[in-house]
Amino acid sequence: MADYTEMWTELGIDLAAHDGLLEVLPPLYGESILSQEGRPEGMEYFDFVFSEIHGLRVKELVDHKKSGGTVVGTFCTYVPEELIIAAGGICVGLCAGAQVAAEEAEKYLPRNICALIKSSLGFKLAKVCPYIESCDLLVGETTCDGKKKYYEILNDFQPVHVMELPQRKADPDRSLWREEVRRLAERLEELSGKKISEDSLREAVRVVNAKRTALLRLAELRKSDPPLISGRDALLINQIAFYDDPVRLTEKINALCEELEARKDSGGSIGGAHRPRVLLSGCPMAIPNWKVAAIIESSGALVAMDEMCTGIRYFRHLVDDGAAGMDELLDAIADRYMLIDCAVFTPNPERLDHVKELVRDYGIDAVVYYALQFCGPYTVEAYKVKREMEDMGMPFLYLETDYSSEDIGQLSTRVQALIEMVGIADKA
Amino acid sequence: MADYTEMWTELGIDLAAHDGLLEVLPPLYGESILSQEGRPEGMEYFDFVFSEIHGLRVKELVDHKKSGGTVVGTFCTYVPEELIIAAGGICVGLCAGAQVAAEEAEKYLPRNICALIKSSLGFKLAKVCPYIESCDLLVGETTCDGKKKYYEILNDFQPVHVMELPQRKADPDRSLWREEVRRLAERLEELSGKKISEDSLREAVRVVNAKRTALLRLAELRKSDPPLISGRDALLINQIAFYDDPVRLTEKINALCEELEARKDSGGSIGGAHRPRVLLSGCPMAIPNWKVAAIIESSGALVAMDEMCTGIRYFRHLVDDGAAGMDELLDAIADRYMLIDCAVFTPNPERLDHVKELVRDYGIDAVVYYALQFCGPYTVEAYKVKREMEDMGMPFLYLETDYSSEDIGQLSTRVQALIEMVGIADKA
Repeated sequence: MADYTEMWTELGIDLAAHDGLLEVLPPLYGESILSQEGRPEGMEYFDFVFSEIHGLRVKELVDHKKSGGTVVGTFCTYVPEELIIAAGGICVGLCAGAQVAAEEAEKYLPRNICALIKSSLGFKLAKVCPYIESCDLLVGETTCDGKKKYYEILNDFQPVHVMELPQRKADPDRSLWREEVRRLAERLEELSGKKISEDSLREAVRVVNAKRTALLRLAELRKSDPPLISGRDALLINQIAFYDDPVRLTEKINALCEELEARKDSGGSIGGAHRPRVLLSGCPMAIPNWKVAAIIESSGALVAMDEMCTGIRYFRHLVDDGAAGMDELLDAIADRYMLIDCAVFTPNPERLDHVKELVRDYGIDAVVYYALQFCGPYTVEAYKVKREMEDMGMPFLYLETDYSSEDIGQLSTRVQALIEMVGIADKA
Repeated sequence: MADYTEMWTELGIDLAAHDGLLEVLPPLYGESILSQEGRPEGMEYFDFVFSEIHGLRVKELVDHKKSGGTVVGTFCTYVPEELIIAAGGICVGLCAGAQVAAEEAEKYLPRNICALIKSSLGFKLAKVCPYIESCDLLVGETTCDGKKKYYEILNDFQPVHVMELPQRKADPDRSLWREEVRRLAERLEELSGKKISEDSLREAVRVVNAKRTALLRLAELRKSDPPLISGRDALLINQIAFYDDPVRLTEKINALCEELEARKDSGGSIGGAHRPRVLLSGCPMAIPNWKVAAIIESSGALVAMDEMCTGIRYFRHLVDDGAAGMDELLDAIADRYMLIDCAVFTPNPERLDHVKELVRDYGIDAVVYYALQFCGPYTVEAYKVKREMEDMGMPFLYLETDYSSEDIGQLSTRVQALIEMVGIADKA
């Protein structure tokens, strides 16, 4: 990485604390990601992007701002990035996946709040996240109690526009959400000082649809057994999809897919034969949170699919680009986001159906439910997912954890027991 | 209490487990409530109602059902009881305030969920709550993540109609909520098989307004110093207001108020001079949860007001009965409930303003913030309340607890330290 000290200083980064963070990342990356064998060549780009996570990409944001553009930060897959792009902005996901300044954050937040929220405020308070410091606006949403109320506190530090996400999917909810999408569009227009035109919105829809289509193409390739790519590499790509340039990223994902398709045609794989295939289901794993994926794959299994926001929940649905006119296009965008089956909705049968579908389509041998401790929606919905899996005779393991490394031993033991059981069942 | 074995058996109550529960209540009541000195005579009625909590009042519900009426259970102050009454129903609050069958409940719910929800499912699973077993319908609401998702599980045991409460108070939210109020009215009409007429609705509004007006009259009397009534007795009345017959209850509260007003005129009090006056603020204290109120008052202080759902948040606002016609009346009901300043709303400046107002109006010496562990909205909003109190120079104590008795010693120590500090400040 080049010397970005000047840029970080201008952004108000606490250089000493930031140095500490940057020292931790490479060994973690080495251990969790680079140590894997048989990785596709196309992963080189993503390794590079990660190595420059606080460097080159941040420089692009800063340069974009210098040339009159805006940078908008989000925390959730419910915020329509199409609008941000159409208003001449860059959209960056700010969900935080590492324990930073937890004690400091607990001066504002209860101790019993999920690691993702605590980490987000920790990054802000410790001044070690050049992404949030680059943002002209943060866009929150009323998904869970924790985030909804956290945004009120965060707003004291930096302006947060909060979108109201309804809690059901009936007609009045759809109307409310369509209005919320328009309210965000207005706010973004105010921020950038330029109107969102139908052309720019249509182009943004094309760009984001292309990104999601590329991610879907990659997901399709994860059905291969033996596997063409590890779950950790796929997770890394999904995590990077939240902050990298969407056009460049799409090209790189497609190039990787071509490599994997060729590998598939020649009977190749990342090595070895069949591995027990795990569906990871539940809360998002924000970068650099690879803890559970690494535990599963180090135990000899494969994460074949991620039913989470840093997985297929992010790219499963496209915006209908057949919409005619601005109003229809805005509705199409709103409707696409209402399809997301996050546990914050009640009832949420779509998610149960989707988990079952993934289990069938991806040849899943076991489901690992990943719950961030204190995440109300996902910890409660776990019961319904578990019951459905039991009905299918599908092994199910519920893991509740946070960002600490203290429970790695205990989690590993439980995952290994699951994988062993599945392995024995495979042979029987 | 008479012998209600037959009635309980018909309701499907587990008699052995229920006996266990009924053995625990009288000593708890004796210790927390009856042991107080100088109680007003008017409390006799409430002592009686509590002594018959699973007897006489349940018999009234059963008799009401036998004569063709319905019984509808609620968990939250956001459910318009006017509609239930207008449809010929009896409305009973089902929030549960004691630890029952927690282990059994944890087979369905995460361990880290608030005591109120865990207790509610515990009562259902253990079959020891004749109220829930009497209900023809349960009405939930999308207030917090925990309850919202819990209702999906509870619905497997008993039908739950869920009202969608919006999360902001803008115009689209108001519209959505007005529709939700109408949707509930329709469901109640279906249930009872009779139309809600304008007359019956107007009468129900009158009944519930009268109940809230009586509670407001009592609240007004709590401004007296030295006190005319203890915080625990006032809390008990508020708790009983969720399940007793509203017309009879209103009479009894008014009679009590007359007694207190006479006492006030003659310079009487519950004994002693000024006691440090505490505002309890936060989560609801469902019956028989008197833990924190008892700790505070045993430390020599007085709970002068409760800024909670089992307190002034329940009765602060009345329905505007000037509304002309059915449609306006339904809107007036919807609008009244949207005024409630629960922490589930974002932003929620009304609550901060109200806490400050109560501190001034009730001559408050210290605020005790009562947070149920794992309650996202109230534990996060605590930060804002604390900051406002610090700005006013108001002593503030944050207590996070559950329904167990294990932390009573620790809580008492902290409360005593607060009261001592306030006492010293008083003398200075």
